[in-house]
Amino acid sequence: MSTGMDEARKGEDFVRRVEELNQLRERMDRVKHKVAVMSGKGGVGKSLVTVNLAAALAAEGKRVGVLDADLHSPTVPRMLGLKGARLEAGENGIIAPVSPSGIKVASMDFLLPSQDSPVIWRGPLKMSAIRQLLSEVDWGDLDYLLIDLPPGTGDESLTVLQLLPGIDGVVIVTIPNEVSGQVVEKSITFARQMNAPVIGIVENMSYFVCPHCGEKTHLFGEGVGERVASTRGVPFLGSLPLDPEAAKTSDSGRPFVAENPESAAAKAFREIVKKIVDFVGD
Amino acid sequence: MSTGMDEARKGEDFVRRVEELNQLRERMDRVKHKVAVMSGKGGVGKSLVTVNLAAALAAEGKRVGVLDADLHSPTVPRMLGLKGARLEAGENGIIAPVSPSGIKVASMDFLLPSQDSPVIWRGPLKMSAIRQLLSEVDWGDLDYLLIDLPPGTGDESLTVLQLLPGIDGVVIVTIPNEVSGQVVEKSITFARQMNAPVIGIVENMSYFVCPHCGEKTHLFGEGVGERVASTRGVPFLGSLPLDPEAAKTSDSGRPFVAENPESAAAKAFREIVKKIVDFVGD
Repeated sequence: MSTGMDEARKGEDFVRRVEELNQLRERMDRVKHKVAVMSGKGGVGKSLVTVNLAAALAAEGKRVGVLDADLHSPTVPRMLGLKGARLEAGENGIIAPVSPSGIKVASMDFLLPSQDSPVIWRGPLKMSAIRQLLSEVDWGDLDYLLIDLPPGTGDESLTVLQLLPGIDGVVIVTIPNEVSGQVVEKSITFARQMNAPVIGIVENMSYFVCPHCGEKTHLFGEGVGERVASTRGVPFLGSLPLDPEAAKTSDSGRPFVAENPESAAAKAFREIVKKIVDFVGD
Repeated sequence: MSTGMDEARKGEDFVRRVEELNQLRERMDRVKHKVAVMSGKGGVGKSLVTVNLAAALAAEGKRVGVLDADLHSPTVPRMLGLKGARLEAGENGIIAPVSPSGIKVASMDFLLPSQDSPVIWRGPLKMSAIRQLLSEVDWGDLDYLLIDLPPGTGDESLTVLQLLPGIDGVVIVTIPNEVSGQVVEKSITFARQMNAPVIGIVENMSYFVCPHCGEKTHLFGEGVGERVASTRGVPFLGSLPLDPEAAKTSDSGRPFVAENPESAAAKAFREIVKKIVDFVGD
């Protein structure tokens, strides 16, 4: 049972939600392709893949935006040279900072009071933060909106996939150990339950080439990404080496595909980008 | 405004919550030391540190339990050789499976229908799952209960730290790149806001020794853990190499401190354990 005042408030809430969803739809209609990058576990290089995918597409002249939906560990701004940037209000919504390579970026990091502030938020607040970043940022006309999901299959990932029914698909990043392979299976199941096509699996930190002797060592295991892809019937997009030089570019704010285009990592990455572009079409 | 029935239901809920909290207090009173292992980012080896800490303490004759509170990526059972184990009901509560080395383990993984099932849960459900594992598992008398928190500063970590006000402290695991160092700062702020003492920082994957030529390479960066520890005034507990042999033990179910006690990683790890034991006292 509820009072008349409750009813009135519920009505207002409902109207606001509908307006927000309409705005979201309008903004998303102007984005050609929406691709989410996810991982079962954290620390496998999901954000590294997102920013290098963004940089590779931008280098081909595409208009690219990145939504950093990893509220607990929003690392995309730093990786794209936008550390310390801020969101500003504009005529048509929130103005997203633009990276040196022309990528529009919206991240929770831009809203945090300081670099060492944690986001201690309960689920519903996190969902509303993501909804606002998606619907209120003035993304404009984009060829690609890449969404860096938080690791795992929690509230944030649910929210994004529910709000973007027209998503082209998800790229799943893993490293080649059994534990990570197991959680990749969970990610595939999750994506399928949400009706998001799985574009494929990227295996990161597959091997290490010693800079002293040139010998290759498998650091975590071998062939796990390819095996899971084949078992579950999803495409395998490729393997990336653990390259200390590429790791440095994460801290410097310049993605390695742009910084070291001739490195083995960048070459392997361009093959992966090609497969993703082929999957989503033009 | 609410009806009489609402009131009655609220009353029942309240009584149930109080009973649950009393049971939790009784169980936790029988645990000498409670230590949480957390990380700002995932994939830095938080679970590896948890299970090896558990194995090192068990090897010294301590009675050890591990609560795997990482609901989205519950990897502790596999790392302790308990993959596929199940929770069972006993006279005094849920009976936790015991690892070959005598460690009691409670994990969401034991409740999942299959290895590839994701936990797609909203915040409140996750909190109640953790509360139940803590309060309903028959931990018995323990010297140490280690809690493997999920990465970041979300619902699960909040819940555990709120339910365990008598926690001895938290160990924070990181890898040595700037991005991870930045999120470690968030973890320290979070722990302090929750009044949990910071036992110290463990830097994992600090370097790699090539098995072919013996040369050392820093894979991600250098000295980040030590620098953050010194800046924020928390102890630095030590560095661990990335050791492909240790990584294999994660998949085999036998922690490397027990499997390869003479390895550089195991030796470095024992130094870290000593500092943690010194911090929490006997």
